[in-house]
Amino acid sequence: MNRAVLLLSGGLDSATTLAIARHEGFEVLALSFRYGQRHAVELEAAARVARHLGANRHEIVEIDLRSVGGSALTADLPVPQGPADREIGAEIPATYVPARNTIFLAYALAWAEVLGAADIFIGVNALDYSGYPDCRPEYIRAFEAMANLATRAAVTGARRFQIRTPLISLTKAEIIRRGLQLGVDFSLTRSCYDPAPDGRACGRCDACVLRLRGFAEAGVRDPGRYR
Amino acid sequence: MNRAVLLLSGGLDSATTLAIARHEGFEVLALSFRYGQRHAVELEAAARVARHLGANRHEIVEIDLRSVGGSALTADLPVPQGPADREIGAEIPATYVPARNTIFLAYALAWAEVLGAADIFIGVNALDYSGYPDCRPEYIRAFEAMANLATRAAVTGARRFQIRTPLISLTKAEIIRRGLQLGVDFSLTRSCYDPAPDGRACGRCDACVLRLRGFAEAGVRDPGRYR
Repeated sequence: MNRAVLLLSGGLDSATTLAIARHEGFEVLALSFRYGQRHAVELEAAARVARHLGANRHEIVEIDLRSVGGSALTADLPVPQGPADREIGAEIPATYVPARNTIFLAYALAWAEVLGAADIFIGVNALDYSGYPDCRPEYIRAFEAMANLATRAAVTGARRFQIRTPLISLTKAEIIRRGLQLGVDFSLTRSCYDPAPDGRACGRCDACVLRLRGFAEAGVRDPGRYR
Repeated sequence: MNRAVLLLSGGLDSATTLAIARHEGFEVLALSFRYGQRHAVELEAAARVARHLGANRHEIVEIDLRSVGGSALTADLPVPQGPADREIGAEIPATYVPARNTIFLAYALAWAEVLGAADIFIGVNALDYSGYPDCRPEYIRAFEAMANLATRAAVTGARRFQIRTPLISLTKAEIIRRGLQLGVDFSLTRSCYDPAPDGRACGRCDACVLRLRGFAEAGVRDPGRYR
């Protein structure tokens, strides 16, 4: 069975990506990160999603991006709330975390190399997204090229690493439909950047707005809990 | 004053790189990593070197690469010792740490983005080196290309990131001479992968062998302490 490493946040995109990787027959190591995010409740969701969708192993990596700062998700800055006076994705929002996907993918690469996995899955999406530069296809291709020069495989000629982004050209509604086809229970997922202490979503941050729009367009009730 | 982020291990290469960056007039944030390395004594050397060479700030980032494993530096595997029955650099040695430079540079990129630094210094060297794939110029160029697609600068058109490798084409003897010209006190540096509990170097691992050869070729006494 081929092995893959997958970045699992606990949101609906990475849950659907996990369902796709399992559907393709991969043995999956799911990696999540406790990086000082204000919405660390997503890690409990990630653990539930990993069990629910049959990840073969789930690791939570402890890193501290609060010391770096520079983001509304890791520093004491307000999370932008709607109704948005701007178009989501038109500019880079305050919730962008500097180099986050690069750090996460670097860890995934280390794990993949040690486990003999050639496939690294990440649920980035360049349509209904927040405008983060490290979710765009050109970034993913550049990371993949770098990864194939960084590692033993570059010298030994082993199978090349592939950064797999099955959601990259799907709308949020399409992601939701694909997830439902594959049996994802979206009530287990958490998307909100600014949840209440009891875990209920704000319904107003970009992540909530994109999620609510996606369920509406898919014609499906969002099983998430909102304030 | 232009800001730079610099990876500082406590060895002689990164010390010389710091001296070069300061000589070029950069305000330097030096980053070191406690990653579960068996030679964590290098972090005390890094702190001394940072003070000695006038780094404006020194951060030690705590990450755990032991859980990933796969290297003689982070797992319970023997460090290869000489006299080598192989040519150093001819194959990837057991001390290679999977994706280590990618993880370190990813953190450096995050800090650089937050601090408004466009220059990231790393003391890699592709001549007298251990054969690590992530020390080669083609890897560094690929990381730089990726970095410039990963960040706000990719979208806003700010100054491009440069991964600066002033040692990449120098021999170890040339690095030592350059460091001495710039006033580096190499007695503060630590190179050994397998030091004794009191910090004395083994004299036999690849890092020691390369260092000893370099000082011999430079015609300078190595002020390091050996067993």
